[in-house]
Amino acid sequence: MSDAIAERLAWVAVDWGSSHLRAWAMDAQGDVLARGGSDRGMLSLVPEGYEPALLEAVAGWLPAAGRVPVWVCGMAGARQGWHEAAYLPVPARLDELAHGAVAPAVRDRRLAVRLLPGLCQHADGAGRGFDVMRGEETQLAGLVAREPGFTGLVCLPGTHAKWAWLEAGGVMRFTTALSGELYQLLASRSVLRHSVADAGLDAAGCREAFVNAVREAAAAPGGFSQWLFGLRATDLLDGTLPSGAARQARLGARLSGLVIGLELAGLANELSSTPVTLVGGAALTARYALALEALGHASRRLDGDAAVLAGLGLAQAAP
Amino acid sequence: MSDAIAERLAWVAVDWGSSHLRAWAMDAQGDVLARGGSDRGMLSLVPEGYEPALLEAVAGWLPAAGRVPVWVCGMAGARQGWHEAAYLPVPARLDELAHGAVAPAVRDRRLAVRLLPGLCQHADGAGRGFDVMRGEETQLAGLVAREPGFTGLVCLPGTHAKWAWLEAGGVMRFTTALSGELYQLLASRSVLRHSVADAGLDAAGCREAFVNAVREAAAAPGGFSQWLFGLRATDLLDGTLPSGAARQARLGARLSGLVIGLELAGLANELSSTPVTLVGGAALTARYALALEALGHASRRLDGDAAVLAGLGLAQAAP
Repeated sequence: MSDAIAERLAWVAVDWGSSHLRAWAMDAQGDVLARGGSDRGMLSLVPEGYEPALLEAVAGWLPAAGRVPVWVCGMAGARQGWHEAAYLPVPARLDELAHGAVAPAVRDRRLAVRLLPGLCQHADGAGRGFDVMRGEETQLAGLVAREPGFTGLVCLPGTHAKWAWLEAGGVMRFTTALSGELYQLLASRSVLRHSVADAGLDAAGCREAFVNAVREAAAAPGGFSQWLFGLRATDLLDGTLPSGAARQARLGARLSGLVIGLELAGLANELSSTPVTLVGGAALTARYALALEALGHASRRLDGDAAVLAGLGLAQAAP
Repeated sequence: MSDAIAERLAWVAVDWGSSHLRAWAMDAQGDVLARGGSDRGMLSLVPEGYEPALLEAVAGWLPAAGRVPVWVCGMAGARQGWHEAAYLPVPARLDELAHGAVAPAVRDRRLAVRLLPGLCQHADGAGRGFDVMRGEETQLAGLVAREPGFTGLVCLPGTHAKWAWLEAGGVMRFTTALSGELYQLLASRSVLRHSVADAGLDAAGCREAFVNAVREAAAAPGGFSQWLFGLRATDLLDGTLPSGAARQARLGARLSGLVIGLELAGLANELSSTPVTLVGGAALTARYALALEALGHASRRLDGDAAVLAGLGLAQAAP
């Protein structure tokens, strides 16, 4: 099996985040031969630890001789990562990310590692604020690889949700909402932790609770911190809600809707009749699609892993 | 010294919160003879632990014979506290809190303990949402004790900031904003913890950063979660800010302004030309006064401890 991979291996794709490393063995046609990964993310590594962590995940795929290109996006290229690949400032063409790649020194002669840069944005007093991304630019490049010259608004939901305005295959500007982290902090560390659970939207009443909360927060975002405490008080006083886990699921759906509704309120002037392209995992992009739909906005979804692989593929194929 | 207190002791005032217990020895004129307290708050106690914790703080004040009234507000009266003093529903007169007080059983015959109730509010589809308070109602009663028949909007900043609409000495409705807890979570548990410090507003540029953030968040609260991440990106990219502790103080002041500005955005329709009465500690009420002033609203400040004592005094003097 390993020999079969080594024979067909053309390059290795790596998405190296803060908490995880994910790797794919790729053939020359861009098909996936094998997958690997570990929890050796940036936060758990010193610079000297990256090459061993990479080998742990991919050594079984490598042929006995010859250097294999390994294209890496994400936090491995951060200043506090393996080796800094300095941010490219926007506006930036997404088919030119490879120009900003750096090659960290490696001991194993089978590896030719390239770390892709992130994007940064300086405040310009005309709609752009200070902002950074590292990893998501490669997903955006994947979208452009699939749809050359893409123009439109793209949302990548997550811990730090990115919204990027693309024109003719380049990022013109972007903004980041702390939504995922805000939700996690409130759901697991605040007084609300006693009242909410993240049980998805399929249980009875959860979808409706989510949609109503999105609409309320988007219509009057100033109510956000009052609605937060209202979740706790509702849990204490509302006799009409179901009890136990069903109650927590309902209130958890409402909390999620409030956070995403607040985020969408901040984008209200930017959401037009053009569909938003959502890039990410199935559950989260479905949730954002539902929130956008609740506010009358169309969207389409693109798988985040497919986008990463397409983006790394675009980089490794660059001249 | 202790004998001097015991001779003049008329009653004991106690504010028993989630994390602390504070007690005052009071004479018949309402003057404070002595203060005590400990970190034996509700969260660290089982019901049997309250009487020993109370005695630890006040035993030195008690005369050898005779029962001393001990009036207690706060979480000791919660369901998960010493003995539940059920919430009184609003509208509620603040000079009648004592009618809802309960007397927990005590072993020490020198103690006659009364736990004051909190207030609750049921959603009525006409401006009132589900809400609860426990402890703040006694501060509101203190305001009414000083200004009988008080009518106006009162704000008690804190972990869970309370806003109460009073009419003729009664609470008509109230709302709670999670602002203090939100700030703490973001400043100490989120990605922003690397970028912000709570250093007050006196350092260079901090007051201006706070005021600007209040105005921005109040004007466009939907931007809140984007501005949060913007703090992190600003820390990474903005070369015009000072470095080190001064940078963190500036960004911390901005975070505080964003959170308080968001809270005030939710009250925008309620803030009128009538001054807001701020009740609480000096630093926090000063910060809220500055935020209100930045939005063109007048306020006046009342010391929170004085309000608690006046409120407990009103209860102990009730027929």
